Amino acid sequence: MAQYIYGVDLGGTTVKMGLFAEKGNIVEKWEIVTRKENSGEHILPDIAASIQEKNTEKGIQTEDIIGIGIGVPGPITEDGRVLKCANLGWGIFSVADRLTELTGVKKVKAGNDANVAALGEQWRGGGRGFNSIAMVTLGTGVGGGIILNGKILTGSNGAAGEIGHLTVNREETRTCGCGKKGCLEQYSSATAIMRMAREGLEASDRPSLLRDYAEVTGKEIFQAYGQGDELAGEIVKEFAEYLGLGLSHVAAVVDAEAFVIGGGVSKNGQVVIDVIKAEYEKNVMFALKNKEFRLAELGNDAGMYGAVRMVME
Amino acid sequence: MAQYIYGVDLGGTTVKMGLFAEKGNIVEKWEIVTRKENSGEHILPDIAASIQEKNTEKGIQTEDIIGIGIGVPGPITEDGRVLKCANLGWGIFSVADRLTELTGVKKVKAGNDANVAALGEQWRGGGRGFNSIAMVTLGTGVGGGIILNGKILTGSNGAAGEIGHLTVNREETRTCGCGKKGCLEQYSSATAIMRMAREGLEASDRPSLLRDYAEVTGKEIFQAYGQGDELAGEIVKEFAEYLGLGLSHVAAVVDAEAFVIGGGVSKNGQVVIDVIKAEYEKNVMFALKNKEFRLAELGNDAGMYGAVRMVME
Repeated sequence: MAQYIYGVDLGGTTVKMGLFAEKGNIVEKWEIVTRKENSGEHILPDIAASIQEKNTEKGIQTEDIIGIGIGVPGPITEDGRVLKCANLGWGIFSVADRLTELTGVKKVKAGNDANVAALGEQWRGGGRGFNSIAMVTLGTGVGGGIILNGKILTGSNGAAGEIGHLTVNREETRTCGCGKKGCLEQYSSATAIMRMAREGLEASDRPSLLRDYAEVTGKEIFQAYGQGDELAGEIVKEFAEYLGLGLSHVAAVVDAEAFVIGGGVSKNGQVVIDVIKAEYEKNVMFALKNKEFRLAELGNDAGMYGAVRMVME
Repeated sequence: MAQYIYGVDLGGTTVKMGLFAEKGNIVEKWEIVTRKENSGEHILPDIAASIQEKNTEKGIQTEDIIGIGIGVPGPITEDGRVLKCANLGWGIFSVADRLTELTGVKKVKAGNDANVAALGEQWRGGGRGFNSIAMVTLGTGVGGGIILNGKILTGSNGAAGEIGHLTVNREETRTCGCGKKGCLEQYSSATAIMRMAREGLEASDRPSLLRDYAEVTGKEIFQAYGQGDELAGEIVKEFAEYLGLGLSHVAAVVDAEAFVIGGGVSKNGQVVIDVIKAEYEKNVMFALKNKEFRLAELGNDAGMYGAVRMVME
C-alpha cells in the first residue's frame, strides 16, 4: 500500500501544500489562501479540509498517511507549540495537536518556517551533502535556520537561528521591527538594500546607474555593482560587511559545515556569495575559515520539503 | 562488582585525574605533571601509567572500568581526533584510539577542554537543572562551551562554542592570539582587564584605588568598581559591554536556557553576572530576554566531571 506525507508551508498570505510519496518525492503541490480573520481561527481547519479533499481525489485513506509536517511563521517549541504568531493573529497553543484533532493523523510535526526551510535546503537543496548547515534567507527580513546532524536546532524558546536579529551595529539609531537597534536585518535584507538605494539617490546628485530605474531592487543594485557603479558598490559593501560579520558569529557558535544563502536577494547569484564570503573570512578565526557557501535551490518550495523531512525523521 | 570511570582533564601544566564510581560520584582525585617534551609524546603514556597505578592500588581490573573520558586543550572532532594542540606539541591523531591502545579500555571519549568543562558544569555545577547551557570561561583567555540537550556541541571542525573569538569590535587595531583583531578575548579575559588597568593607570595621574596595589587583577578591579572608582568603572564597562554583546550572539544562534560564567574573573561573584546581564539584555530580541545567568561551581574540577559525563552518555 502506497504511503504519503503532507508538507505544509504556512505563510501570511498563502499556504503552500504538497503531497509527497513516502521516500520524499513530490506527487503534487498546490496553494490555498491564508484566511487570517478572527484571530486566524480558519487557518488550520482550511488546511485540514484541503488535505481531506486531496485524500478523496487520490483515494488516500487516513491510515495511508505517514504524517503531516507544517512550518509556521513564528517561534515554536520542539513539541509543536506556537508561542504567538503575531502575523496570523494566533496565541499560544499546540499546532501539532490541533492538526491531529482536525485530520485524524497522529504524526504531526510543526516547526518555525525559517528553520523548516533550512531543513528542506539541507535535505534536497543547496545544503545537500552536508550534515550541518546554517541557512540565511534574505527577503523582506533576514531569517535564519540552523541544521545540526540533519535536525533543526529549535532552541529553548524556539528562537535559535534568529540570525536577522544579531546585533551587528551598536551605533545604530534606527529601530528594527523587533524593537532593538542595529540588527543584521537592518542592513542585509532586501528591504534594507532598497532603502539604502533610495536614501543614497536622494542624498546627492552624483551620477549612478540606479537613477535609470523607476524602482530599485536587489536585482538593479547587484547589476550596477557588477558594472562598477559607485553607489551600488557602497550599498553592496554595507550589505556584505554586516552579513559576513553576522555569519562569522554563527560559525563561532555552532561551526556548521556550510552556509546556504536564500531569499530574493540570493537570486542575484554567485556574486552575492562572493561578497559575503570575503567579509566572512575577515571575521573568523583560522579553525572556521574556508567554509562552504551555497545558494539555496528550492525557492518557495523549501518549506514544504522541510516539513516533509520533519515527518521522516 | 563495582564499576568505575576515569575522568581526565589534560592541561598545559598538569593533568587532573579523577576516579569516579559508576553513578558519577568521585572516589578520589589527583594530579600528574604534563610532560610536553618531544612533541608531547609522554603525555598519554603517563596518563595510562597513572591509571594503571590507581587500578593496582584499588584492586580494579580493566573490565571493571566503564570508560575513560578526557578533555584536551585544542579542537577535537566528535570521534576523538585532535586537530593539533599547539600547546602540547601534538599533531593530528585519535586521542581516543591511542588511550584505548595504552590502557586496554575500549570506551574512551575525548573532547575539547572548554566544552568538557561546560558539560561538567551542566551536569553537576552551575548549570544543574538546565538541558542546554552556554558556558563562558574568563581566564587567561575567554573559552566557551555549548551544551544542547545534555550533549556537547562539537561543530564540524571542533570549533563550536569558540566564544572568545567572536569578532565584537571591528575597529580594533591590536591582534589577538588567534591572529585576527577585535576578538571578545581581547576585552573580557582576566588578561584583558589586567591590561586595561595597567594602561589606564599609566595613561594619566588621575586618582584611583587601583594605584594602591602592586599588582592589579580582576579582584582589585571589581572591588574598586564596587567602591565607585572611576577607572575601575571604565574597565568593568568595557569588559561587560563586549561580553554582553558576545553572549547575545550566542543566544541568537543557539537559544540555550542559561549562561554559566566561570574562570578566574567569575570568582568575583554576583557583581560579574549583574554587569554582564545588563549589557546582554540591551542586545537581544524579546524572545531571548531574561535568560538565566549562573556562576560556575566546580572550579578546576569541571573538566574532570565533564570527562566522566561523556563516558556515561
